[in-house]
Amino acid sequence: MPLPLAELRAFAETLAQAAANAALPHFRTRHAVENKLEGGFDPVTLADKGAEQAMRALIHARYPEHGILGEEYGEEPGSSPLTWVLDPIDGTRAFITGLPLWGTLIALNDGTRPVLGVMSQPFTGERFVGSAEGAWLGEQRLHTRRCASLADAVLMSTSPQLFDIPSRKAVFDTLSGQARMTRYGGDCYAYCMLAMGLVDVVIEDNLKPYDVQALIPIIEAAGGCMTAWDGGTAQHGGAVVAAGDPVLHAWLLEQLRPAL
Amino acid sequence: MPLPLAELRAFAETLAQAAANAALPHFRTRHAVENKLEGGFDPVTLADKGAEQAMRALIHARYPEHGILGEEYGEEPGSSPLTWVLDPIDGTRAFITGLPLWGTLIALNDGTRPVLGVMSQPFTGERFVGSAEGAWLGEQRLHTRRCASLADAVLMSTSPQLFDIPSRKAVFDTLSGQARMTRYGGDCYAYCMLAMGLVDVVIEDNLKPYDVQALIPIIEAAGGCMTAWDGGTAQHGGAVVAAGDPVLHAWLLEQLRPAL
Repeated sequence: MPLPLAELRAFAETLAQAAANAALPHFRTRHAVENKLEGGFDPVTLADKGAEQAMRALIHARYPEHGILGEEYGEEPGSSPLTWVLDPIDGTRAFITGLPLWGTLIALNDGTRPVLGVMSQPFTGERFVGSAEGAWLGEQRLHTRRCASLADAVLMSTSPQLFDIPSRKAVFDTLSGQARMTRYGGDCYAYCMLAMGLVDVVIEDNLKPYDVQALIPIIEAAGGCMTAWDGGTAQHGGAVVAAGDPVLHAWLLEQLRPAL
Repeated sequence: MPLPLAELRAFAETLAQAAANAALPHFRTRHAVENKLEGGFDPVTLADKGAEQAMRALIHARYPEHGILGEEYGEEPGSSPLTWVLDPIDGTRAFITGLPLWGTLIALNDGTRPVLGVMSQPFTGERFVGSAEGAWLGEQRLHTRRCASLADAVLMSTSPQLFDIPSRKAVFDTLSGQARMTRYGGDCYAYCMLAMGLVDVVIEDNLKPYDVQALIPIIEAAGGCMTAWDGGTAQHGGAVVAAGDPVLHAWLLEQLRPAL
């Protein structure tokens, strides 16, 4: 039976709204000094936990048979192969510094791959949605742009400090040096700008499944490619490369594979 | 005679709105591939030129005696000591990658220093304003936060590639390594997050007068310090350091001066 995608997409947007209601009151509150690595109930932790709790409650009520995998509260297996993969606040550093580049990531995985993805940025009111039906920002259909050569490409990555394995850092630095421009600090927002045709390449490492699963259907439906550095599925996270142009993506894989 | 600050502030906000009307239609347009260094009439250049023309026309009409210094069209001396210092699109890399972190910077310099500053981000609808009367984001009064030690500080800078003199890059890297967290990619937005008390330090180099003059009154009125690395005025650009806590700013100057 095919998935009722329209119904599931509408539900995913309901989840996004619930997460926004829980998270936004904590954005730019003044005691955002602590980061979550140091523990304690700082604003981003409150936003993260509150948003994930709100989404889990809605899923339990509407689709009790579905599984859930979330950043804050781990895995709840379901009786169905369908699993919601949730990152309530992707981009915690953007969140604590007041920058509107964080997002709530919501994916639906059918047991083989993510088939529906939502990235919601509630401060700007933007909601990026992707599935086999297409990729949209609100009513605007999204398309990646053609850019076959790295020399013409705009490259983004969250931080040069993301790469802690020397061979991976070295290949990133080499590719960054060949790109027309490198820009840091995008988190999930960078992948959505790639889907919009404003960024050509995103290269990252050390990602978790919930960091990437919502973004894959958005990028693929916009005409781009997003995989692990070995060319396999990106859905498990780790070292990931996305490109708007499949020709450039294939070339990047040749450069990245030897560094694994 | 004291300056009519309320009237000038209202006029600066009129300039910001005119710049927004000229720039925003070019944001996220699809042929934003070219960057201005390569010439041609790409969207960011159209936005930059259109926004500065709109602001200059308003200044000519209302204050023909004032001088103007703008990024795109250079200097027009006035018969008054007052000069408007304009950067229509600060953060062109953010602009061309679709990130809402660019801003229109508007300062009024009284012949000795900037006495009024506006940073306008029209996509998010945010307008940061500073003068001797205080610093605001809309109706919200802004205050920096106390953070006396770099080990507790959130440090921002537009890019690690901003520092092209080895001694300056070295001192930045040392300070970045001592900070609690470093985040790249803020442009003018980072200074405004410092004024809001969400970021503690911004360290940059190679800035122009129109990159910084609007930000100085915002940061100073919020309780922070913004100077050149030698402790002198930041209004001429170059190597600049801003901190929310004057104690940390004084300590940073001791570290930065030897690298000049």
